Amino acid sequence: MNGTNGVKKETLNRASEVEHLIDAVKSLIIPFIQAADDAVPSRAAGELLPNRNGVVHNALVESKRPEELVKELALSLPQGEGRGEEGLLETIQDVLKYSVNTWDQGFMDKLYASTNPVGVISELVLAVLNTNVHVYQVSPALAVIEKHTAKAFASLFGFTGPRAGGVTCQGGSSSNLTSIVIARNTLYPETKLNGNTSRFILFTSSHGHYSVEKAAVTCGFGSSSVWTVPVDKSGRIIPSELRRLVQKSLDEGYTPFYVNATAGTTVLGSYDPFEEISAICKEFNLWMHIDASWGGPAIFSPTHKHKLAGSHLADSLTVNPHKMLNCPVTCSFLLGPDMSVFHKANTLPAGYLFHSSTPSDVWDLADLTLQCGRKADSLKLALSWIYYGAAGFARQIDAAFDLAAYFATLLEKSGNFVLVSENPPPCLQICFYYAPGGKLRGTGEENTEVTRVCVERLVRRGYMVDYAPDVSGERGSFFRVVVNAQTLRGTVEGLVKALEAVGREIVAE
Amino acid sequence: MNGTNGVKKETLNRASEVEHLIDAVKSLIIPFIQAADDAVPSRAAGELLPNRNGVVHNALVESKRPEELVKELALSLPQGEGRGEEGLLETIQDVLKYSVNTWDQGFMDKLYASTNPVGVISELVLAVLNTNVHVYQVSPALAVIEKHTAKAFASLFGFTGPRAGGVTCQGGSSSNLTSIVIARNTLYPETKLNGNTSRFILFTSSHGHYSVEKAAVTCGFGSSSVWTVPVDKSGRIIPSELRRLVQKSLDEGYTPFYVNATAGTTVLGSYDPFEEISAICKEFNLWMHIDASWGGPAIFSPTHKHKLAGSHLADSLTVNPHKMLNCPVTCSFLLGPDMSVFHKANTLPAGYLFHSSTPSDVWDLADLTLQCGRKADSLKLALSWIYYGAAGFARQIDAAFDLAAYFATLLEKSGNFVLVSENPPPCLQICFYYAPGGKLRGTGEENTEVTRVCVERLVRRGYMVDYAPDVSGERGSFFRVVVNAQTLRGTVEGLVKALEAVGREIVAE
Repeated sequence: MNGTNGVKKETLNRASEVEHLIDAVKSLIIPFIQAADDAVPSRAAGELLPNRNGVVHNALVESKRPEELVKELALSLPQGEGRGEEGLLETIQDVLKYSVNTWDQGFMDKLYASTNPVGVISELVLAVLNTNVHVYQVSPALAVIEKHTAKAFASLFGFTGPRAGGVTCQGGSSSNLTSIVIARNTLYPETKLNGNTSRFILFTSSHGHYSVEKAAVTCGFGSSSVWTVPVDKSGRIIPSELRRLVQKSLDEGYTPFYVNATAGTTVLGSYDPFEEISAICKEFNLWMHIDASWGGPAIFSPTHKHKLAGSHLADSLTVNPHKMLNCPVTCSFLLGPDMSVFHKANTLPAGYLFHSSTPSDVWDLADLTLQCGRKADSLKLALSWIYYGAAGFARQIDAAFDLAAYFATLLEKSGNFVLVSENPPPCLQICFYYAPGGKLRGTGEENTEVTRVCVERLVRRGYMVDYAPDVSGERGSFFRVVVNAQTLRGTVEGLVKALEAVGREIVAE
Repeated sequence: MNGTNGVKKETLNRASEVEHLIDAVKSLIIPFIQAADDAVPSRAAGELLPNRNGVVHNALVESKRPEELVKELALSLPQGEGRGEEGLLETIQDVLKYSVNTWDQGFMDKLYASTNPVGVISELVLAVLNTNVHVYQVSPALAVIEKHTAKAFASLFGFTGPRAGGVTCQGGSSSNLTSIVIARNTLYPETKLNGNTSRFILFTSSHGHYSVEKAAVTCGFGSSSVWTVPVDKSGRIIPSELRRLVQKSLDEGYTPFYVNATAGTTVLGSYDPFEEISAICKEFNLWMHIDASWGGPAIFSPTHKHKLAGSHLADSLTVNPHKMLNCPVTCSFLLGPDMSVFHKANTLPAGYLFHSSTPSDVWDLADLTLQCGRKADSLKLALSWIYYGAAGFARQIDAAFDLAAYFATLLEKSGNFVLVSENPPPCLQICFYYAPGGKLRGTGEENTEVTRVCVERLVRRGYMVDYAPDVSGERGSFFRVVVNAQTLRGTVEGLVKALEAVGREIVAE
């Protein structure tokens, strides 16, 4: 097209390109999700059933070892000209073919599963916006949504003051790290300028997540600065032990400053006793953090929120809607009673980015975090909350908790398993051994081997579950199965059948 | 549907729900992108032109102050039942209405802009996969792609040994932080257990990004541990000054250990002299990192890659395809010559997650990073690379560099601006003052005010550009305009017209 002055007029036609590519990719992703939907009867059966065309296919995953998969994918990043749409769609097809289908009911391996339809479109909207919630200027709507959503979420945990709120970080590890930095910079403000001025000590459950140790290394405390607190038989911190260790650290000349309590431990799903822990923190002027990455969303459930009693006493709290609430990975909030504390701890001058130096209310959200560029992960929770409502979340969570108890009961009734979890389990994991006749007979090493081989064979039947070492180390590794809001009753019934079948095979060998 | 045993058969129908919602959301996002495509003639004109319906509309942004926007959005997260599809689509519509449209040619504010059609669908695929590249078991295809893509990218920078490669982190700040932790844990391995054992010192350009300072606070060194090195008039580190400061830190009893060199500084876009910096690092046994977050992708261009000469001498290098390559935010790689160093520095035992303790080749990628759960951001670069090819990237980058020079030349020719950038600029930013007649006459404060007000008024004409303080502080804040691979010639021509118009207005007032 030529303008009147004879100069070629420039045009852009990205809207139709985007539309065209979305349609092309839809024809690959919808059948991927459909395959998982179609596998529901197989998962209820405990074995792979033929589909309507009589073909037996494992929708969960086509397992390959890394070296095999490298060959199979034969990925090629062109040194010269690109492969255009054809190469793009071929690659996406291969990626789908060799990925674990987290939409499959059999995916019960991790503390997250597939997202849901709302999650998919929230990522689509974020991709189209492609902006950055570091400063308000470039992300006005998303900054408002992050602040509003964090504040509403914080209030559920009892952070209700005028400065309560939160920010998103890029995952639970990142939120926990951020909380430690805020704690140190707040309690010992000279560290912001001068670095670690004392030999700081952190406390966490012996069942706590390794991100606290990783953060302690990052922060220059070293892994030896993390003192683990013994737990009771339910996997909860023993408050008197915490108090004893804090006193010990003081007696030995250290500076205790931070306690990480957990709401939903990684293996057993235990909730620590927050009120008692808070009392100790107040006595010794320690920062109290709750890692509710996993178990936090129970706050939406009138039935289960009591597990989080005392959360309002914390100085900060991590919660990941990308786990129990099925928001897309990653979506993690760091919440707290006072955002001016977060701001003071983390702000640094950068004249080329932040143009208002003394804000009364911070709208340039990066200044509350360790990050600069930040994706607006909060939109994922906001859209999901609007779609399902707090009442919908509560129903999903209650159903999942009920299902965890139902599965534990099925295992008990079968007589061929030994539960490690209590029944009902405190959260959505069910931990157990395979033990024909209900007695665990082998050595730790033997039990570990039975568990490991069962886990491998379950994949062939369409179930992916994980296992974890016995922390005491005596009885060997046990199964850890995780249900989620999308898990059906039939699936856990089928899983019991499958477990019994592969267990019998292995013991017979 | 009832099964033969009378039990209600469970079914799932998520595939059609996803399809339905994608189509519904498409009807909102495609017009959003279309509006930006349609604004091309306005951006070439330097003012808002009526569209085909005779309506004058600013596609870039409908600006609101935070307090106004809070009211306008009136976001409500239901305490009870959800608002379902209707509430979802209404909210998305509002978010689009009040967001900055980064697809608009006038968005020249930051070191990123919109993504492109390939970027949009890469996020769609990642959302559907919704998995986690922490362990291979749950993300086989994506783990292979991350390793392959990082290795190919690393080789461009000259990291070509058998253990060369990289990982993605969640942004440039996170990659830089990770590099500092790896450096300390590698050069002073006792710190991993015992924490900071010395008074560590880091060096960066006085024009470097504030993420290094933020990371130093995080790591427990304190902000005073970051010594800034003076730059020459092109904004490049003066090697003799670096050497002098390293010696000074030693003389004063500190432990210098890390030098951050920059490839594409935030304000001017300068590239430090890497070969000379490397010689000093080798002399004093310092870790050499290159923050190529912004300027790194120039490595794809035969014309501009010389700016990165010496990159192969670095111990680690950050590069963000979410900036110059238009991958969706965030996509940041930390690359290096030896991944076994990354692994040794960051690995920690977590028996419930990592089941193989002594891998010869690490496939559980979280173990190389500070993270646990990790989104597979590498897929965004992989798909883009396959689509455009290295040759396509080179053409995009060359065009953008040419356009930066063209814009600088237009400003010079106009006679009403004083360039801060050299011409041609080293990278894609063009920094300048508005100065009628080509002479900068005001005080620093006056110049800052002219710049600030111009920037505000440009938004009303459809251009969003940023400004930055003069580091010396004498001349006041200047404009920083950023072009990208999608910027058209007409747009920078129109911007010159708009700058002259708003400049005249302000000076006349």
